[in-house]
Order: sequence, then structure tokens, then C-alpha cells
Amino acid sequence: MSHHMSEYTGPQCPIPISDYPTVMLAHGGGGRLTQMLIERLFLPAFANPALEALHDGAILEVNGIRLAFSTDSFTISPLFFPGGDIGSLAVHGTVNDLAMCGARPVGLSAGFILEEGLPMDDLWRAVQSMQAAAQAVDVPIVTGDTKVVERGSGDGMFINTAGLGLIPEGVCISATRARPGDVVLINGSIADHGIAVMSVREGLEFETALTSDSAPLVDVVFSILDQVGEQVHVLRDPTRGGVASALNEIAAQAGVGIRLEETRIPVGEAVRGACEILGLDPLYVANEGKFLAIVGPEAAEAVLATMRDHPLGQQAAVIGEVVADHPGKLLMRSRIGGLRVVDMLSGEQLPRIC
Amino acid sequence: MSHHMSEYTGPQCPIPISDYPTVMLAHGGGGRLTQMLIERLFLPAFANPALEALHDGAILEVNGIRLAFSTDSFTISPLFFPGGDIGSLAVHGTVNDLAMCGARPVGLSAGFILEEGLPMDDLWRAVQSMQAAAQAVDVPIVTGDTKVVERGSGDGMFINTAGLGLIPEGVCISATRARPGDVVLINGSIADHGIAVMSVREGLEFETALTSDSAPLVDVVFSILDQVGEQVHVLRDPTRGGVASALNEIAAQAGVGIRLEETRIPVGEAVRGACEILGLDPLYVANEGKFLAIVGPEAAEAVLATMRDHPLGQQAAVIGEVVADHPGKLLMRSRIGGLRVVDMLSGEQLPRIC
Repeated sequence: MSHHMSEYTGPQCPIPISDYPTVMLAHGGGGRLTQMLIERLFLPAFANPALEALHDGAILEVNGIRLAFSTDSFTISPLFFPGGDIGSLAVHGTVNDLAMCGARPVGLSAGFILEEGLPMDDLWRAVQSMQAAAQAVDVPIVTGDTKVVERGSGDGMFINTAGLGLIPEGVCISATRARPGDVVLINGSIADHGIAVMSVREGLEFETALTSDSAPLVDVVFSILDQVGEQVHVLRDPTRGGVASALNEIAAQAGVGIRLEETRIPVGEAVRGACEILGLDPLYVANEGKFLAIVGPEAAEAVLATMRDHPLGQQAAVIGEVVADHPGKLLMRSRIGGLRVVDMLSGEQLPRIC
Repeated sequence: MSHHMSEYTGPQCPIPISDYPTVMLAHGGGGRLTQMLIERLFLPAFANPALEALHDGAILEVNGIRLAFSTDSFTISPLFFPGGDIGSLAVHGTVNDLAMCGARPVGLSAGFILEEGLPMDDLWRAVQSMQAAAQAVDVPIVTGDTKVVERGSGDGMFINTAGLGLIPEGVCISATRARPGDVVLINGSIADHGIAVMSVREGLEFETALTSDSAPLVDVVFSILDQVGEQVHVLRDPTRGGVASALNEIAAQAGVGIRLEETRIPVGEAVRGACEILGLDPLYVANEGKFLAIVGPEAAEAVLATMRDHPLGQQAAVIGEVVADHPGKLLMRSRIGGLRVVDMLSGEQLPRIC
């Protein structure tokens, strides 16, 4: 490494090297350390307005049309899990990021990093599953790339998908549009994905089968946007870091407070039990088929009804509201009535969950 | 793995499992096995016209404008090498793929897969280098993603970039446009990137420093397109698999023959020497700042002059022609006058070169 060390004379790394000399698992966990990496390292380096919006994707205006552009790498372990696999997840993750920008997907890219020795049949199954997932939302996989690394330099298969989407007129989704009085909804029960993956990985047996919620949200999102598009202020899929981290980010970006009602947040019984056994708070566990919608109060009832009419929203609920108090913070009224601050995820709760 | 095995009842993997039970390094080498993976596994699964064009990127028509969309994952080892690093390479690779579609880059995504334990300073340097490379071609990095895998499940840092570009009117680049009589040009000497990386990796010492040619080709490409856009039929950057594999692909896609003149192909003296020592044919070695242009004969002189006027084309040369004979094949007239078939790369010549 002496080669580049001797040449480099620019500014020094803004992450305190004494505290974080190396990359840690928690830097990829979607919580506080991920945020530090983004805010101190990536944002100052890549500085540009599209990136600084800190959206699930970038919104670009090209020749008068608004495009959404998003990327996600999938490193989930195991590759196949109850309710999905790395292939379907890689499609759902990126089409959902586009939907969270209010965009209809136009095309996906697929970049494979394969480890030498991966069973060819595993690649085949993952690819078939990607295609089935892409076909279900009617978006083609239009371009791709495959790299192979030596045995021991990867872990079976990593997939990156990037996505391109088109934002219809009248839709304007942005975290900064959350404002006091807005209502916070979710389309169903939380923590299903993370707990399903963890239970397979740890070899846990539960009475009820735990299944990932991995699903494409494009259709349910557009059933809402087509109806009350302008009243939908923020959309966010609470993946890594869970509902707590996603709402903390929104509160910080919009400079508002958010208040949750614990009793209103749907959590499946089996998932709640598994969380207790694993010592996990469902608020921090990843979802792959859920989205938070923050909407004007006048539209809340219609949005809830539309969600519940959709197969992916039958357990939809109003779970909280945006408030002017405690800007930048997420608070939750607990079952027994107390109000407590719900912080971002700190540390790494569930590595390799997506 | 019993979970997914028991559920799966669809068609079987089209790669002959008896011959290739697992993924091999050569499947990522850009040669024959990569082609087999694409043709037998990816294309039938993802079937759609944009992908089937087998371009360096997809060309999509959205609301009346033509967009190019491309992706590449970078797994190069070592991360820092003479003439570049994984960060600059990740930008050059994708902006070059867009340029090869005749598109001006609009925005890039960056997906990082980091291995736990990566020195934070290496990440910082790579990010700074990405940004410098992006700024040099005036394209913002608008969206990103970071994943961290456990120590031993990755190899320092992998970067995926996807790119979005806009194709101006009048430009129509496609391998299928190569036709007999067309002239084949290259903007300079071949094999510089692959040999520079190999020499560092193998700890070889040569009298002359060997430096990667990693560079953004957008400017030199558009200096040609702005002048004789409609006469430019095919553009291709000969990365993995080198000039030989790129021209074989074009010959197959267009159903034409291509004939090269060995004496006209620029190869640096030091690179030629290193190739002899390493037992490599420069025609198969990766380039990261070179492109092949196949142009109508009436435009060849102007294209050559424009290339030579540009800093990235001073050693540009006419190296061959498209012929009606031997469709689908690349032939080369050697120094001593004989004509021989130049096949695609078979096997893995240089792993982890990009």
C-alpha cells in the first residue's frame, strides 16, 4: 500500500480514525454509524443536491421529466430464506426504493458478484426468482454485469440492483414535507423480514412459521398516489434499522417531532415472541414489504381505506402523528401510557439482513 | 438449503451442471464462459429487447427521450494500483459504458460492499478518488448504498456503479450497425491496464513504470460524435477480455467479419515486454481508457484526426476493417503476412482486473 500512501497529499479522513480505525459491521447496520459514514464521509465528498436530499433514491430532472434513480447491494445470508431469496429481495428492494420516491419503475440493472465455487444451481434459482419478481411488477431487467472473485474473497453471491423510475406529475414525495398535524400510517405488521431471516440463520424453531414480508410495494403505493397524490408528503420503507431508524431520519430531515402510539403498531404474535427470545426490539428490525406514509390529516382516512383494500395492506394502521414539539426526535407512548424517546439504532443489531 | 430445494419445481438450470457444477473464475473473465453464462442463463431468464441488444448499457426510451442505463461491479485487487484505484476505476468504467452507448452521463449511483476491518482511510481515499473522477466528467454521484460483510466474507471493498445517460438526437450506436467496408479505429495503445495491475499484483519490477490507462472517454467520444455522429456505427471499450473479445462479440452480433492488421495495433514497448514475460497476448488484456470505433469509411480520416487531437487519442490508429467474408469471426494479418483466426478469450486470463 506504500504506493498510494506516498502520493496522497489531500485532506484527511473526516471519520475520527482513533475511534474507528476500520470499518465495522455496524457501519452497515442502518443506524447511527451508517448515518455517520453518510454524513461525514459520503455527503461532503460527493456533495450535490440530489444526494443531499437523502432520499431512498435520487430525483433527477432530465429534459423536463422527473426520474428517480436508486441503488442497493444485497448481501443477505442465507441466500434462500422463508418467504424469499436474494433474487426476489434484490428486485423488491430497488422497486420499493423507487416507489418511495413516488416513481413507477422503468428498468432495473443487475450486478452479480459471485464467489468461485457457488453452486451453479443456486445462481440459476436466484436469477429465476429475480425475473419472477421483476415480471410481477412489469419492470424489465435491462442491463447487467457479472464478476467472479476467488474462493474466500466473497460469500456465495452478492447482487446489486439499480433502478430507474418515472415520477408522474403532481407527485412530490420528500422527507422535508412532513409537517405538524400529518398522520403516520404503515401498511401492516413490522419486523417480519428480519425475524424470519434470523430464525433460519440461528436455527431457531418456532411453533408458527415465520416468513419474510418481502414484497413489491409499487402497486399499493400507486393505488394511494393515484387517489390522493398531492396529500402524500413522505413515503419510506423501513428496511435496515427498522421503523425507529426511518422515522428518526425523517424527523431530523424535516425538523419536526414524530409521536408513535405503541398499541397501534401491528406486530404479529409469533414475531413478538421471537423478538422476546432473541432480545430484539421489533421497532429496529428490518422490513422488506412495509412502508410508512406520512400524509395530510384530511387524506388519512382515504389512505387507510385504500391500504386495507390492497392485499399488501390488510393490517394497515395509523400509528402516529407529526408534531411541532421535540423537533428531530421520535417519541412513543407506551402501552402503559408513558412517553419515551425512541432513538436510532446504535450498533449492529442484525448483520447481513438484506 | 433443504428449504428451497424442496419447494422448487420449475425448469432446470440451462448451464450443463455436469460440466460446470459451480461458478468458476473464468465465468467472470469476459471470455467464452462469461458469454455462455449470459447467453444460456441471463438472457433467457430476463428476456427483453433492451438486454438482448447486448450493449455496454441498455438504451431505454422514456417519454420521448433516449436514456442509456449501465451497471458495473468493481472487484479489482489491489484496491490501489499505478494510474488509478478502485474509486476512479468505478467511475471511469461506468461513464465509459454510457459513452459507448453514445450517451452523455447524467448521474451515477455508488454501492459499496465493505469487509469488516477495511481501513477507514482506504475507504476515504477511494471515495475522494471517485469524486475527483466524477467531477472531471462533470457527473454527480446522486445516490448510494453501503453494506458491510463480516471479515472473510468479502475482500476489502467492492464498488458497484450504475449510470444514467442521455443520448442526443442523431446518435445511433449499435453493434448491429457494423457493415462491410467500415473502418475499425482505436484511440491508443492496448493492454496497459491489465499489465499495470498484474505487475503490481505479482510484484514484478520492470525498467519502465507500467501505468493503467484508466480514463474517462466521454470527452473524446463526444468530440467525434459532435462532428460525424451519424457515421459512427459502433463504439465499444475493450475491458475484460480485451480487444479480441470485444471485436469477436461485435462480429457475432452484426454477422460480419472483422480483419485486423497486427502491425497497426499500438502496443507500448514495456507492455509488450511484460506480456512476453507473463505469457499474455495483449489482444486479450483489459483496457480501461481505450475504445474501438467502427465508422463508415468516408468518416474514418476525420475520426482519426479528431482522436489524435485529443489528449486521450494521440496514438490513435486505424487497426482494421469490417468485411463480408467469414461472418462472426475475427481474423488478423500477422507481422509476417499470414492470416489467422483470433478467438474469444477462453478460460480466465487475469482475475480481478476490474
